[in-house]
Amino acid sequence: MVVKVYGPLYGSPKRVLVCLVEKEVDFETVSIDVLKGEHKHPDFLKLQLASDSHYNTFARWFLNITNHGEATEAQEESRAIIRYDAEKYKSQGTNLLGKTIEERGLVEQWLEVEAHNFHPPSYNMVLHILFASVLGFPSDPKIIQESEEKLGKVLDRRASTWPVISSALLILATFRSLNTWWLIWGGSI
Amino acid sequence: MVVKVYGPLYGSPKRVLVCLVEKEVDFETVSIDVLKGEHKHPDFLKLQLASDSHYNTFARWFLNITNHGEATEAQEESRAIIRYDAEKYKSQGTNLLGKTIEERGLVEQWLEVEAHNFHPPSYNMVLHILFASVLGFPSDPKIIQESEEKLGKVLDRRASTWPVISSALLILATFRSLNTWWLIWGGSI
Repeated sequence: MVVKVYGPLYGSPKRVLVCLVEKEVDFETVSIDVLKGEHKHPDFLKLQLASDSHYNTFARWFLNITNHGEATEAQEESRAIIRYDAEKYKSQGTNLLGKTIEERGLVEQWLEVEAHNFHPPSYNMVLHILFASVLGFPSDPKIIQESEEKLGKVLDRRASTWPVISSALLILATFRSLNTWWLIWGGSI
Repeated sequence: MVVKVYGPLYGSPKRVLVCLVEKEVDFETVSIDVLKGEHKHPDFLKLQLASDSHYNTFARWFLNITNHGEATEAQEESRAIIRYDAEKYKSQGTNLLGKTIEERGLVEQWLEVEAHNFHPPSYNMVLHILFASVLGFPSDPKIIQESEEKLGKVLDRRASTWPVISSALLILATFRSLNTWWLIWGGSI
């Protein structure tokens, strides 16, 4: 049984790749070049269960588990997949969900904070700092400044409550941030 | 041990109330009137762990489990809480997470689709159909029409794949929609 990850190798799919590495799961990648419109090819679209691939494309991608070449399971939405992988492979690799229901509750809380407080301003920063010229619209310094302030608030609050949970438990929630740090500061992960 | 739900009795907290009812959990509500700014009162703010209550207020609220009057657990973010409750009380009430890891994976997928594909257009419709005059800005017919189209696409795709999972498993994901339907059509839930 081979885990296949469909999508570009950046953006949301990167979260799943990091999760699979942490869980010590072998996987293959199937590159989908969204800049060439490959995400709209019928062969890719027919794999999709739920999403509307015509908007918010970077959040759309696939984990497809095959058996003898046939799709036996397919899942989309990166945060759903990292939760699934963390649960399915909980007996191996890094513990990402905590040891108790309460610890998992805190991980879930941080995943939500990432999605709704961290992601929107960080996405805006990536868009306006890195992609404005590529995508052909003017970079807006006001949006960058406001986004930076929002991001600072989230991180300040988060840092102040970090002792509540161990750093290991934060890994799953942090997967959601990796791509942003990577894009903004050009680091290697 | 009493489960206390802090927040207004509409919006995100309503999801948790419905979840607690489905799980047959006794609870108390502590009303926080956001229109009167009660969500910024120090007594409420000190309960908050992670969120920035000064923006996106309607998504912020609290589940506080107390023991002998002292807070022993506190969690925020409505979707984190319904996941936590569904897990903590899995042996009672309605099964909301499925019987297998794969079924839970599908529930998680739909929760993500709700959050990122369903919620934004439905929120815009609620805002522009119901709250524009109350909040003092002009209702925008273009936003309403575009949001309706986006919502239709999500629901069409979703309906076509519903047979994949049983209706019971959809309940948890559907909690995220209840408030929208309730607000748009004025039904009772």
